[in-house]
Amino acid sequence: MSLTVVGSVAFDSLETPFGKREKVLGGAATHFSLSAGFFTNVNAVGIVGNDFGKDEWAAFERHNINTEDIEIVEDGKTFFWKGKYEYDMNTAHTLDTQLNVFETFDPKLSDNSKDSRLLFLANIVPMIQKGVREQSNAEFVAMDTMNFWIDSMKDAVIDTINVVDCVIINDAEARQIANEPNVIKAARTILDLGPRAVVIKRGEYGAALFTDNTYFAIPAYPLESVFDPTGAGDTFAGGFMGYLASESVIDEDAMRRAMIFGSVMASFNVEKFGTERVDELSHDEINSRFTDFKRFTHFEEIPFERAQSV
Amino acid sequence: MSLTVVGSVAFDSLETPFGKREKVLGGAATHFSLSAGFFTNVNAVGIVGNDFGKDEWAAFERHNINTEDIEIVEDGKTFFWKGKYEYDMNTAHTLDTQLNVFETFDPKLSDNSKDSRLLFLANIVPMIQKGVREQSNAEFVAMDTMNFWIDSMKDAVIDTINVVDCVIINDAEARQIANEPNVIKAARTILDLGPRAVVIKRGEYGAALFTDNTYFAIPAYPLESVFDPTGAGDTFAGGFMGYLASESVIDEDAMRRAMIFGSVMASFNVEKFGTERVDELSHDEINSRFTDFKRFTHFEEIPFERAQSV
Repeated sequence: MSLTVVGSVAFDSLETPFGKREKVLGGAATHFSLSAGFFTNVNAVGIVGNDFGKDEWAAFERHNINTEDIEIVEDGKTFFWKGKYEYDMNTAHTLDTQLNVFETFDPKLSDNSKDSRLLFLANIVPMIQKGVREQSNAEFVAMDTMNFWIDSMKDAVIDTINVVDCVIINDAEARQIANEPNVIKAARTILDLGPRAVVIKRGEYGAALFTDNTYFAIPAYPLESVFDPTGAGDTFAGGFMGYLASESVIDEDAMRRAMIFGSVMASFNVEKFGTERVDELSHDEINSRFTDFKRFTHFEEIPFERAQSV
Repeated sequence: MSLTVVGSVAFDSLETPFGKREKVLGGAATHFSLSAGFFTNVNAVGIVGNDFGKDEWAAFERHNINTEDIEIVEDGKTFFWKGKYEYDMNTAHTLDTQLNVFETFDPKLSDNSKDSRLLFLANIVPMIQKGVREQSNAEFVAMDTMNFWIDSMKDAVIDTINVVDCVIINDAEARQIANEPNVIKAARTILDLGPRAVVIKRGEYGAALFTDNTYFAIPAYPLESVFDPTGAGDTFAGGFMGYLASESVIDEDAMRRAMIFGSVMASFNVEKFGTERVDELSHDEINSRFTDFKRFTHFEEIPFERAQSV
């Protein structure tokens, strides 16, 4: 029942048509672990500077995230990202990126983190992802990546895909990795690289799970307004992996429920800025949207039989 | 158990990255009725010229479509559309449109067509759609429309929406009618105009059904290749309305199954050019994909309960 995540811990400055926030808690490992923390014990592995303050650590503490493996660089500054969204919230416009201490990130897992049953490699340099995977004794390892690495070092991305159990990416990334416009074919191509599961995130259109013999797809939770999509993908991955960590067997049935919990967590994440909404979530709210998903997707299976007379 | 459709019957010249066809059978009422014909008795109401030949009529006959209300203009030419798709099959590029006899289309329903239990108003001038609705005694009337009418005569489109039971459109059209970028809000806005159901078609992303108190969404059937998307929307509507016609009560459960049958029919339509694939379909193939949909979307509903000890 434990899960380790390796990735960025950051400050984000965010602007959407609905408002702005300066230097709020962000980063892939942050969004992931706050989400996963609702389902299991989480170890976060990352790096921050001495500007990372009491309020930021308190968010991890509220969710019982183990931060022992978050390195503090005493004379460094925390990774900073500034982004803006127009009404089309599918595209983030980066206004500023300051890697700061993240540039020297060389994750060393403690024994506790090494022995987690599950491991998530958030979006970082693929060689570092692979190095972390090699340090870990996890039974189930998933990874994310992004267009920047696929553009600049696709072979390294594929080397990492070769050694994980699950890839969790968006549809554009899947198309780019497989060099294939059809997302169904692209997912199958990535499966052929070794993982037992490929999860494709499609934002407002939902998500799909591909395994060797099966296909599972769900719509997104129907939201009348999206406030800030920052971290939605990592929050999805956190719900997905966190739920799986709570299951004794990671099989198709468990992964299908994990897809729903991932979507539920992402649906909350986008309702407020940064980590605000997930930070205040309750288990009842999570289970209520899980039940909604069943209601939104259920139909009675009655094949059509045409009467002879019509 | 009967259904009337009013709309275009046409010749299409089609070009996709996978090939081309010259002057094949097309038109909204054609795609709709061939699809609906698998589920119920269909009356097609349309207009053609004297160039509409034996092969074209034979397609309707093979599917037992009643063509009594398709007017033949002896000295006229049938509506002709020429279109091209690039690899992004979501957008059709119109190369030529010749309305021909369709320009004078003034549909008069025979008693048989008037007394159909269901009526579908395919995409034509909204005032004509409304006029047809007024001629009909149907219990359940659905309509399509397109960006051209929403741009040029939105009030007339809304006047027609006011008098139908169901609107079946794509997401861009829904956003445009409601003047609202969020598709969930847009669908709710259209519901407020009077219909009891709004169906939003989202192509490769699936489809969603909105009623006053419910929401239902499904993914698209996962296809590894799409050959020609022409008529997919009308084929969806044909499966949806045709299936509903076979049900004695048009309630939420029936509409949910109708969504699946609509998607199944559309998934076949895009596998070959024009009407080729639907023309050769069998009921076993249809039911097999219906069952696939259950497999692709089913999950066990087990809410998460966090053990106290983790």
